[in-house]
Amino acid sequence: MEFSDIRSQAKRAGHAPGVLIYTGRSKNPTQITLVNYTKESCAEKSTLNFDEISTFLDEPGNHWIQAEGFKDVDIISQIQKKFQLHPLTAEDILTGQRAKLEEFDHYIFVTLKILTWDKAKKKFAIDQVGLVLGSHFLLSFSSGPLDIFKKIKDKLMSGPKQRLREQSTDYLFYRLIDAIIDQYFVVLEELGELIDSTETLIVTEPERHHIRKLYRMKRETLMLRKSIWPMREVVNHLSQLDDKFITKFTRLYIRDVYDHTMQAIDTIETYRDMLSSMVDIYLSSLTNRLNEVMKTLTIISTIFIPITFIASFYGMNFYNMTELKWRYGYPTVIVIMILSVIAMMIYFRKKKWF
Amino acid sequence: MEFSDIRSQAKRAGHAPGVLIYTGRSKNPTQITLVNYTKESCAEKSTLNFDEISTFLDEPGNHWIQAEGFKDVDIISQIQKKFQLHPLTAEDILTGQRAKLEEFDHYIFVTLKILTWDKAKKKFAIDQVGLVLGSHFLLSFSSGPLDIFKKIKDKLMSGPKQRLREQSTDYLFYRLIDAIIDQYFVVLEELGELIDSTETLIVTEPERHHIRKLYRMKRETLMLRKSIWPMREVVNHLSQLDDKFITKFTRLYIRDVYDHTMQAIDTIETYRDMLSSMVDIYLSSLTNRLNEVMKTLTIISTIFIPITFIASFYGMNFYNMTELKWRYGYPTVIVIMILSVIAMMIYFRKKKWF
Amino acid sequence: MEFSDIRSQAKRAGHAPGVLIYTGRSKNPTQITLVNYTKESCAEKSTLNFDEISTFLDEPGNHWIQAEGFKDVDIISQIQKKFQLHPLTAEDILTGQRAKLEEFDHYIFVTLKILTWDKAKKKFAIDQVGLVLGSHFLLSFSSGPLDIFKKIKDKLMSGPKQRLREQSTDYLFYRLIDAIIDQYFVVLEELGELIDSTETLIVTEPERHHIRKLYRMKRETLMLRKSIWPMREVVNHLSQLDDKFITKFTRLYIRDVYDHTMQAIDTIETYRDMLSSMVDIYLSSLTNRLNEVMKTLTIISTIFIPITFIASFYGMNFYNMTELKWRYGYPTVIVIMILSVIAMMIYFRKKKWF
Amino acid sequence: MEFSDIRSQAKRAGHAPGVLIYTGRSKNPTQITLVNYTKESCAEKSTLNFDEISTFLDEPGNHWIQAEGFKDVDIISQIQKKFQLHPLTAEDILTGQRAKLEEFDHYIFVTLKILTWDKAKKKFAIDQVGLVLGSHFLLSFSSGPLDIFKKIKDKLMSGPKQRLREQSTDYLFYRLIDAIIDQYFVVLEELGELIDSTETLIVTEPERHHIRKLYRMKRETLMLRKSIWPMREVVNHLSQLDDKFITKFTRLYIRDVYDHTMQAIDTIETYRDMLSSMVDIYLSSLTNRLNEVMKTLTIISTIFIPITFIASFYGMNFYNMTELKWRYGYPTVIVIMILSVIAMMIYFRKKKWF
Amino acid sequence: MEFSDIRSQAKRAGHAPGVLIYTGRSKNPTQITLVNYTKESCAEKSTLNFDEISTFLDEPGNHWIQAEGFKDVDIISQIQKKFQLHPLTAEDILTGQRAKLEEFDHYIFVTLKILTWDKAKKKFAIDQVGLVLGSHFLLSFSSGPLDIFKKIKDKLMSGPKQRLREQSTDYLFYRLIDAIIDQYFVVLEELGELIDSTETLIVTEPERHHIRKLYRMKRETLMLRKSIWPMREVVNHLSQLDDKFITKFTRLYIRDVYDHTMQAIDTIETYRDMLSSMVDIYLSSLTNRLNEVMKTLTIISTIFIPITFIASFYGMNFYNMTELKWRYGYPTVIVIMILSVIAMMIYFRKKKWF
Repeated sequence: MEFSDIRSQAKRAGHAPGVLIYTGRSKNPTQITLVNYTKESCAEKSTLNFDEISTFLDEPGNHWIQAEGFKDVDIISQIQKKFQLHPLTAEDILTGQRAKLEEFDHYIFVTLKILTWDKAKKKFAIDQVGLVLGSHFLLSFSSGPLDIFKKIKDKLMSGPKQRLREQSTDYLFYRLIDAIIDQYFVVLEELGELIDSTETLIVTEPERHHIRKLYRMKRETLMLRKSIWPMREVVNHLSQLDDKFITKFTRLYIRDVYDHTMQAIDTIETYRDMLSSMVDIYLSSLTNRLNEVMKTLTIISTIFIPITFIASFYGMNFYNMTELKWRYGYPTVIVIMILSVIAMMIYFRKKKWF
Repeated sequence: MEFSDIRSQAKRAGHAPGVLIYTGRSKNPTQITLVNYTKESCAEKSTLNFDEISTFLDEPGNHWIQAEGFKDVDIISQIQKKFQLHPLTAEDILTGQRAKLEEFDHYIFVTLKILTWDKAKKKFAIDQVGLVLGSHFLLSFSSGPLDIFKKIKDKLMSGPKQRLREQSTDYLFYRLIDAIIDQYFVVLEELGELIDSTETLIVTEPERHHIRKLYRMKRETLMLRKSIWPMREVVNHLSQLDDKFITKFTRLYIRDVYDHTMQAIDTIETYRDMLSSMVDIYLSSLTNRLNEVMKTLTIISTIFIPITFIASFYGMNFYNMTELKWRYGYPTVIVIMILSVIAMMIYFRKKKWF
Repeated sequence: MEFSDIRSQAKRAGHAPGVLIYTGRSKNPTQITLVNYTKESCAEKSTLNFDEISTFLDEPGNHWIQAEGFKDVDIISQIQKKFQLHPLTAEDILTGQRAKLEEFDHYIFVTLKILTWDKAKKKFAIDQVGLVLGSHFLLSFSSGPLDIFKKIKDKLMSGPKQRLREQSTDYLFYRLIDAIIDQYFVVLEELGELIDSTETLIVTEPERHHIRKLYRMKRETLMLRKSIWPMREVVNHLSQLDDKFITKFTRLYIRDVYDHTMQAIDTIETYRDMLSSMVDIYLSSLTNRLNEVMKTLTIISTIFIPITFIASFYGMNFYNMTELKWRYGYPTVIVIMILSVIAMMIYFRKKKWF
Repeated sequence: MEFSDIRSQAKRAGHAPGVLIYTGRSKNPTQITLVNYTKESCAEKSTLNFDEISTFLDEPGNHWIQAEGFKDVDIISQIQKKFQLHPLTAEDILTGQRAKLEEFDHYIFVTLKILTWDKAKKKFAIDQVGLVLGSHFLLSFSSGPLDIFKKIKDKLMSGPKQRLREQSTDYLFYRLIDAIIDQYFVVLEELGELIDSTETLIVTEPERHHIRKLYRMKRETLMLRKSIWPMREVVNHLSQLDDKFITKFTRLYIRDVYDHTMQAIDTIETYRDMLSSMVDIYLSSLTNRLNEVMKTLTIISTIFIPITFIASFYGMNFYNMTELKWRYGYPTVIVIMILSVIAMMIYFRKKKWF
Repeated sequence: MEFSDIRSQAKRAGHAPGVLIYTGRSKNPTQITLVNYTKESCAEKSTLNFDEISTFLDEPGNHWIQAEGFKDVDIISQIQKKFQLHPLTAEDILTGQRAKLEEFDHYIFVTLKILTWDKAKKKFAIDQVGLVLGSHFLLSFSSGPLDIFKKIKDKLMSGPKQRLREQSTDYLFYRLIDAIIDQYFVVLEELGELIDSTETLIVTEPERHHIRKLYRMKRETLMLRKSIWPMREVVNHLSQLDDKFITKFTRLYIRDVYDHTMQAIDTIETYRDMLSSMVDIYLSSLTNRLNEVMKTLTIISTIFIPITFIASFYGMNFYNMTELKWRYGYPTVIVIMILSVIAMMIYFRKKKWF
């Protein structure tokens, strides 16, 4: 999963720039949903017929064209031509990218990573979303249907007299980005809880498989980091664009998104440091355990080895071992053995070995 | 506790921006305290009735509106409307945030982390304070009553002829921030002493639970770091604001706060490095201890194993072991055993094993 | 292989700047391929005769002079004089360099690292490419024939009505760089898969030779890093050049190359962090294994040492050991031994040692 | 000692800014030394009577007011008023600070850390110096008498025709700072020699207490770092001030101080890296030693355990052990034992265990 | 050797700035070599008589004054006065410095570290060179004669019609710096080969003394780093100077020196990372070896301890041990012992312990 960007880019090697090839792995059929909205009215249409799309787009008002699934590259290519997108924009929508913002004469293009938490597998999935914002139109491209976009569409359709309807597509654009970044916090919270629970486990009783768990979390944190860091630049750049695409009204909101991105980054860095410290505890716990095992062995050995020697000594078969025939020989030896054991025990007690 | 910001943000996911939901965990009832002050006079009022608040605010002079506890979101929302705060400002007051500064047309908004040291649990608690500074008014929002704010209010009420009364709300604003940052040093000092005492313990006799203590301190240091670092940007930004909200008089004081923030950051970074070094000592102490355990075992074993072999040897039942019948057989064996033990001891002494 | 740059530079020590010496190791014969192209026509010529080259270059249109192999320094020197290249440019083409961009009055000079993955040895090779872009001419220098350049030449020759033919040499220049950077992703993907497979191995059963594998991968990652990081500066600089050499049309494409470079850098940094974590797992696995070995020894020893003592005890030859003659002496001792073994086993079971 | 800044700041928590409280720990009585100098003449006076001070200051020429010891806060407060220092300047002189530079309308204020090496304890002490430079006056504040300041005063008094007398107080100001930074090199050299000698010890025979020594040095390096890093900013800022306080003549000298500061910082960073590496050697030495202990045990055990078994075997009391009665039974067993020992020894020799 | 800068600076503590004291350790006698050159003619003179020097310098053309050895501080002081050098320049020439560039009104002053590889000791030596470049004159100061300078002087004297003679002293200045930095690559290559050979050793059979070798290399890398990093700033600054001292012609060459410096820095950073990784391999190899030792002990012990118990058991002297008299008692016990050994061996084989 994690190196999908790289695989996606490697697959492109040898192809001319601007040639449309979908290099990802999800095989969702393409769905085009059109939304036309003004302060007063709002209409939605779902079609794959380009003529219908074309007719729909000729109507006045704000347009949101949502393309979900990349199976049907043709229709995406036609939409691209309709909106006169640069060949590289079209290519970038279909290829794994680092989050980025490109400014063109008549539109801005943003690629973002979207994270979804898989509750069952306790890991997150990374996908990519492409957004094209022009004057009164917004195109969104994703490799499959997205829940969070559906919610915003429903909100938009729910009625007039709300900011979404009163503002132009730049506010809608902000709302999509905001929803995407809110998802990061959901993933971060889940990961944080995973870290917290592993921490408790490692501190109380370190087991072999914990280190793998730690490693998996470290790896996921690295992936998150790789996805979220470039967002900082993108959102910062967005907040510094001139008024052409983003109104002053929306810019205030984008600044807020920037703060959230920084908060997410801070949290990831903190997770990373915590995971590093947890590896240290784990290692020290292992050595501690080794110490304990060795102490057990040493105590048993040092108690029994000397008295076993004494027993072996009087098991020798020399003829002139007169002490064997002494009346108090046997009890004396027993007493010596007991004293030896007691001496050893006092020694270990002093060393606080048990 | 630590990931409360993230939890707070994750809870907001799916909500439209600007909708007021308190996502924190403290359930303190809301208290509104109003202070109106000029060079000559000073009045205080505590009420939850918005009309009374409104009337009070119409009086001339400087106003400090202190809102403590977020249970009653309505009254906070009414205050927001009264002062025409941006919806995002109101949202940010109620949601866990990174320390930040937002400039608006008629006010500046600052979110800060406030730290309090819990003497009993030997750990600190992080809370959030929101400050809104406008011309001749200052709003402060906290999830509960704050001691340090009370002290400043008492000082303010204590009489005329002091800087607090002679200056406008920007100086009061500075005093609140200064008090918050002074708290950081209290926490840093306590943490420093904790580190110092743990250090002595680890260096003299490392115990299993020390690593957990170390880890806990590391974690707290990380949390502190995450809270204090963004303060740097905020205070720096504050000191560079134009004269609209912060007078030249106050700006000198803010520069001082900036120096204190840098001092706190330096200290945290030093703590972090020291804690990392302490993990190294701890690990080396464990290995040292293992060495000692192993030496004990090795000394006992290597002394007794050879002589036990000799004893076993003469415990064999062969008929023609003539040495068993020799007159000096038995004493010779005893002498050999003693010499073997002495040889071993000299060997270990040379190796400085005991 | 890896320090070839340094060796190459060290060999130059003592020589005056601008003196042409090839300090690399590949001994490929020099091949000069000339391509002349306009929107309508396209011609190719391969020769080592400088007069023929000179005549060919006098024709109008865009020229791409491809020099492969550095054995024949003379012809390279003649080309250099023909295009009035600075002595340092000629020197840099032949000496191992950090990726860099030099702007001169009538041309820009770029040195790049090209990576090729050796499937058999599972490692990559680094080579250097020098590109000189002037108005309507492009010179490319490599130590041997390059597949990716051949592909672009074939594409160029394949027919009119394509961007390569419609644009000037700056677009061709971009295409060469793009092809070079696409190669990075191929190498990164292969390395990523190597890391992935090693990771699985280390997590399931750590072996001695894994650490060497890890180390080799770390080393390769470091080399990659050293090669790719300076690219960032070069491509960034390229995208900020004024219109003299790079048209606005091409600049958009160069910005895309910049994004790819950043993506490659992010990936390398992630690999680096992952490899560091894998060393930690490996070390903890070793200690785990030591723990297991020690547990086996301790269990066997602590079970048998006490009962061996008992056996030795009753092997003593004292005359008055009356228990030896007791009827139930022998069975009693057997029962004691069995109980001792059971007690030990319960103890170890409790400690979860097996 | 080390967290004195933090303690000092923590003590201030709750106090209004600008209130003069000395929060340090040295209890030196206050001494005020006044020096008035021109190119031609030079006079010195020591007094605690503010009127005398006042009269002295009214004379023309350059004034250096040296305040040593903070016991008598009153006189310091009077001097502050005389020179119209900002309340925060007075506060910062008495409170532990990070090195900093503050520009005011009629003076600049600099706080610096001064280091002194304690030969006996082999550690350094950190103290703070406050310098106020105005037009033709220089105030210096320290918690006790300083040797290096005394030397400069003596030099100043020693006679005319030297740069100190020919220049204004800004050159004197530079000389004080230069003397302070020269002290850093003395401390750095001593610390470097301590590191060098510990290094030799650890490499030849690692002992338990070395790790503590290492840790102490690491800690001292961290403290040094915390003190010296902020100096960089201060001195850089000084060298960029306009001509109001620092003449062009002196600025050249300040640039030199900047280079020295950078040299000190480089050295500290190098020490830090070296100390980290030394911890690695120490840890590896411990493991090496464990290896050696374990080898001794293993060699003794594996040599004697098999032959002890053979001896025990022929100590069994079975009636039909006919080999016991064989003529060559006993010698055969002895030969087998010797061969077993030789075999083991060859095995260990091959493994290079001894 | 390594802290010579610091020692040198520490020695200066207490001295006034600008006082000439040589604080280094090499005791080479001072040699002054004068070279006067124009496009057409070239003359060389070696003298310690200042009058002769003075006369020689009055001739027209470019002058290169080479001072080697610092024993005779007087003559250096006289040269300084002749060229009106700032007192600090003279001081910096004689004191250990960080590489730096100082711009004065009529000259620029550069201090550089020069590295020489000692083939016998397999380590490098660091020395310092001071260069003063003015209009048509260049002064070079070194603590002893330098091979690389001699080579350039010979080149210069070798005849007209070469860039060295056609250009002014700024090009000569560049050539000296270029020669110095070329030396870095020689040292880096040698160090690289040392690292390479140690790497092979550590990977195949880790020995105790390897860690010391590693540490020594790490230390040398740190020293190199400390010497080369500041060069970056110096050379960058040089390439940005205005035309007063460095002509446009030479500036292109200086840019090339900058690239080489960056290449050297990249290489050092890579070495550093590789050395850190090698410490990890070394440590893991040690633990691996411990594992092996412990396995040997455990295998021998667990095979023999149980059967030794059985032998001891039947060595007991109870009267009613009837199995001792059974016909098949003895062979049965032998079979049990053999089975026990086989069982243990299967167990270890399964665990892949041998």
